[in-house]
Amino acid sequence: MIDKLVIIGVGLIGGSLSLALKQAGAVGQVVGCGRNRQNLEKGLSLGILDSYSDDIAEAVVGADIVVAAVPLGAMQSVFEQMLPGLGDNTIVTDVGSAKASVVQAARLALGDRFHQFVPGHPIAGNERSGVEAGFATLFQNRRIILTPIPENIPAQTGRIVSMWETCGATVESMSIEHHDKVLAATSHLPHMLAYALVHHLSHLNEHEEIFRYAAGGFRDFTRIASSDPVMWRDVCLANGPALLELIEQYQQEMSRIACAIEQGDGDQLSKLFSRAKSERDLLIGNC
Amino acid sequence: MIDKLVIIGVGLIGGSLSLALKQAGAVGQVVGCGRNRQNLEKGLSLGILDSYSDDIAEAVVGADIVVAAVPLGAMQSVFEQMLPGLGDNTIVTDVGSAKASVVQAARLALGDRFHQFVPGHPIAGNERSGVEAGFATLFQNRRIILTPIPENIPAQTGRIVSMWETCGATVESMSIEHHDKVLAATSHLPHMLAYALVHHLSHLNEHEEIFRYAAGGFRDFTRIASSDPVMWRDVCLANGPALLELIEQYQQEMSRIACAIEQGDGDQLSKLFSRAKSERDLLIGNC
Repeated sequence: MIDKLVIIGVGLIGGSLSLALKQAGAVGQVVGCGRNRQNLEKGLSLGILDSYSDDIAEAVVGADIVVAAVPLGAMQSVFEQMLPGLGDNTIVTDVGSAKASVVQAARLALGDRFHQFVPGHPIAGNERSGVEAGFATLFQNRRIILTPIPENIPAQTGRIVSMWETCGATVESMSIEHHDKVLAATSHLPHMLAYALVHHLSHLNEHEEIFRYAAGGFRDFTRIASSDPVMWRDVCLANGPALLELIEQYQQEMSRIACAIEQGDGDQLSKLFSRAKSERDLLIGNC
Repeated sequence: MIDKLVIIGVGLIGGSLSLALKQAGAVGQVVGCGRNRQNLEKGLSLGILDSYSDDIAEAVVGADIVVAAVPLGAMQSVFEQMLPGLGDNTIVTDVGSAKASVVQAARLALGDRFHQFVPGHPIAGNERSGVEAGFATLFQNRRIILTPIPENIPAQTGRIVSMWETCGATVESMSIEHHDKVLAATSHLPHMLAYALVHHLSHLNEHEEIFRYAAGGFRDFTRIASSDPVMWRDVCLANGPALLELIEQYQQEMSRIACAIEQGDGDQLSKLFSRAKSERDLLIGNC
């Protein structure tokens, strides 16, 4: 049971977390913090928040768990603001999509209380944002990756594991570096590719018409380009090196495809497409 | 009413066309042709086909409409094979994703009967293939693009329009060149990007693990990489110039993003992501 949960940044992830815990009867009061009062009011009216506060330090007093669910670039400031209110028994976690930068921000901001920070990342979400996007089943059958730091106390890490398991998720651990590399491949790079495509097409002369002839495949492919721009700006800045390495390799892959098209090399194209199809069908399922 | 419809290549598109017309009571007998006897037998047992034949020329005798639904590289041979059986009142159409190459194939193969060919492309489909993937509502509220040739007889084009409208689709016309340019942007380029991503990730050392941490966004983004490799090889070969131009422009767009990440230029990144998001939300809807 979590008597008091504080969510800083009440959007899709924070809102869904509250709903899932409330539905499971696993949380007492949920307090929200954020810069957008209208969003917090909406959180109250939707029953996602029991109260909210402008003052992060005040809000976290007596909390069991504090979840930082703000864009990566805002993490350090949020940690600094909460420090005066943090007690010995409060555990801080986050939901950031890149871990090295958050851990560094926590190390700089939390000082002696750094050991109370358990870094986490729910592999869940969609392109929507704002508290009204939240829903109680978002984390069901999803993975949560924790990247614990050596300073963490196992019992405290265990409470974060329990919190996510209560939401229906599976919790796994990996190193910070490994997390950031894997997520660059499965999430950060695809977002860049989708943003780049939509941005490029929006500059073509006939762009309205082009979007008019977009079928279901295009809609699915570009869905992630409707994601929050500030969140993704911060992911790029936070996970730059891993992402840049992948972009470079990807550009080489695209150049090989272009070269095969130019040379009319059908064998190479069908070999490449077949391998991609069979890998995807095998590992993700043909869906 | 279509008394006799012949479908050459009975897969997702051909199978769905038959089901939609049968459900509307708008077709008499549907005859299938194809190289895979097992697939044709399945078509029979699913009620999609009334009969099938190995001999295309024989099959098309007395047909009202013949639909060529094979990969682009097989079109010319299919047109050549059907010619001996084609009567004056049979209209031939196709469903190819690029039009210039099909029109050229028909021109070369059909000779005096070239005017009986009405080029078409349903903007519908998904990543599945085979007759069992067909379903009667595939074309509902979808667009069908016809790229008529000057030789077409309006009454014959009109019958193809009716056929697709009966399936619940909207039919539009455009020039061959314009079709191939628009589709390169909304369909051919995205398929290349998805194939390239999955192919690249499948070569990374930790690729099984990488796919394990793929969330919904990755699944949607890569769905089109489960499409039929032969069909897409042929699209690349058929629409090479338009596709190559777009790939080159896209590579430049990705290089600009990489450059902004490298320089830590958050303003440029959020500007680009914001524009992409607002274009997509505006023109496709945030879904």
